[in-house]
Amino acid sequence: MYREKIKVLDCTIRDGGLINNHDFDRRFVREVYKAISAAGVDYIELGYKNSKKLFSTEEYGLWKFCDDDEISKIVEGIESRTKISIMVDVGRVELDDVKPKSESPVDMIRVASYVKDIDKAIHMVNNFTDKGYEVTINIMAISRDQGPELEESLHQIEEETKVKVVYIVDSFGALYQETTEHLVKMFKRILKSKEVGFHGHNHMQLAFGNTIEAIIHDANYLDGTVYGIGRAAGNCPLELLIGFLKNPKFNIRPIFDLISREFIPLREKIEWGYIIPYAISGMMNEHPRAAIALRKSDKKEDYKEFYESLVSTDLD
Amino acid sequence: MYREKIKVLDCTIRDGGLINNHDFDRRFVREVYKAISAAGVDYIELGYKNSKKLFSTEEYGLWKFCDDDEISKIVEGIESRTKISIMVDVGRVELDDVKPKSESPVDMIRVASYVKDIDKAIHMVNNFTDKGYEVTINIMAISRDQGPELEESLHQIEEETKVKVVYIVDSFGALYQETTEHLVKMFKRILKSKEVGFHGHNHMQLAFGNTIEAIIHDANYLDGTVYGIGRAAGNCPLELLIGFLKNPKFNIRPIFDLISREFIPLREKIEWGYIIPYAISGMMNEHPRAAIALRKSDKKEDYKEFYESLVSTDLD
Repeated sequence: MYREKIKVLDCTIRDGGLINNHDFDRRFVREVYKAISAAGVDYIELGYKNSKKLFSTEEYGLWKFCDDDEISKIVEGIESRTKISIMVDVGRVELDDVKPKSESPVDMIRVASYVKDIDKAIHMVNNFTDKGYEVTINIMAISRDQGPELEESLHQIEEETKVKVVYIVDSFGALYQETTEHLVKMFKRILKSKEVGFHGHNHMQLAFGNTIEAIIHDANYLDGTVYGIGRAAGNCPLELLIGFLKNPKFNIRPIFDLISREFIPLREKIEWGYIIPYAISGMMNEHPRAAIALRKSDKKEDYKEFYESLVSTDLD
Repeated sequence: MYREKIKVLDCTIRDGGLINNHDFDRRFVREVYKAISAAGVDYIELGYKNSKKLFSTEEYGLWKFCDDDEISKIVEGIESRTKISIMVDVGRVELDDVKPKSESPVDMIRVASYVKDIDKAIHMVNNFTDKGYEVTINIMAISRDQGPELEESLHQIEEETKVKVVYIVDSFGALYQETTEHLVKMFKRILKSKEVGFHGHNHMQLAFGNTIEAIIHDANYLDGTVYGIGRAAGNCPLELLIGFLKNPKFNIRPIFDLISREFIPLREKIEWGYIIPYAISGMMNEHPRAAIALRKSDKKEDYKEFYESLVSTDLD
């Protein structure tokens, strides 16, 4: 009893890259691509396409830029039916850097946008649609943007674009099941010609639970990452999502094997997961940047003081 | 906007004790009791009452037995409105060891029972009710016991006991939101004179999400543990539950402070949380005992082989 329309996207390298400046080496990325392919996951997202005029290649790794020839090196010689996705942020990419689909190993481009930037996002997605890509819009930080502007932007997307999917992105890890249900139902109501996607963050250990909630209310595009890697508390663990879905095309074994071999050692070097300052950020519906800074300071375990710093803002 | 009937029970020392043979020292237990009291949590559960004929006081710590005088030493001199709970397993306690409530610091006794042992549990709870305690029945391993015997046992509890609360206990961490909803609705339908409680396990990171689901469908007694401590993957983190509930009687600060001071160092010594073999146990609806054994072996990170060992059982 599975829903055939459901598609899973692994964004391990892309969201995980937010922890290490997108500096995964090619061997590691190939190992991930190999396992994700063997697991039968529908899409893999390898990073961002950013303008090299805005970000330095000295400071950031390969997956901040996702050059087509670097992607080709990753996929070469590995048997796979998994499609390749990249993400672009509104205002950070040169449209001319994106070649027509026929000349690129990329299948899908996901445009990340706040509600306030939706006009710019629409301009971008129409450019990428014309170039032949599958295109999505991912609405970021949605827990802060649930007013009438959100509904208006969804109407615009429905009427002015040919995007395939519109994602709810819980950037702050602040959604609960009831807010997730509310948002998925709103998206389904307005976006009659689109699929709805869900990208959870795990600040309050609800990324997987909220993803299940989104599935129940008919979201068909679902993000996960291996062992939940991702900025701050990380994302919905891909292995839990695959374990939950009943579609026989998925094979969970390569993911367990990959975690044993690559992610247990990696977790010793970089940090993500259930960590109290991230939980506090989620509860307060705040961007995790203050918590990320705390974790790099010598007050990293001083949770009470961190909590006070967030609640002590004057009520004005 | 809060539901006044909701009661939170902290079972940090009781469920956490399953990791270390109930051997927390008195200083640590007093620190936990102090913080839970300051946080305004309704109940604290300190351990099990077991027969010393069945278990050795050499092998197990104080909180396997919960002698009244040991509990009195913990609470002495600490200002608190938090009630004291202990747990008993069917068949492991001498009823004569339980004094009348008027002679004991204990307020509530929770009787843990499988569905098959419900007649024995009823015999016990009626004894404890007559002695003046608040009494609950906690139905263990419920993900394995959802057949007609479960409904029958609920009817028996409704008709033959004066227990206050009947808990759904997801011992194997195998419930999803939909199964949680189904169970809470069934309990509410049959147990017309009782409250429904929920005790989650976090094998698939769903303890908190399932607890929210139980709240939505009108469960009013909710278990949590500090930093999610508990056997295998642990329980619903108390700090997340308190962060979610809007009742002004709760104060989350003492819990954050306690985690900083006591639980971060403790986690270096004993293990709980999101660990793949526990996630696999949850997915397979299995007791975590094989996974716990694996984590003590030199194959502790060999997830694929562990998964194969669980799925390779013949289909007969």
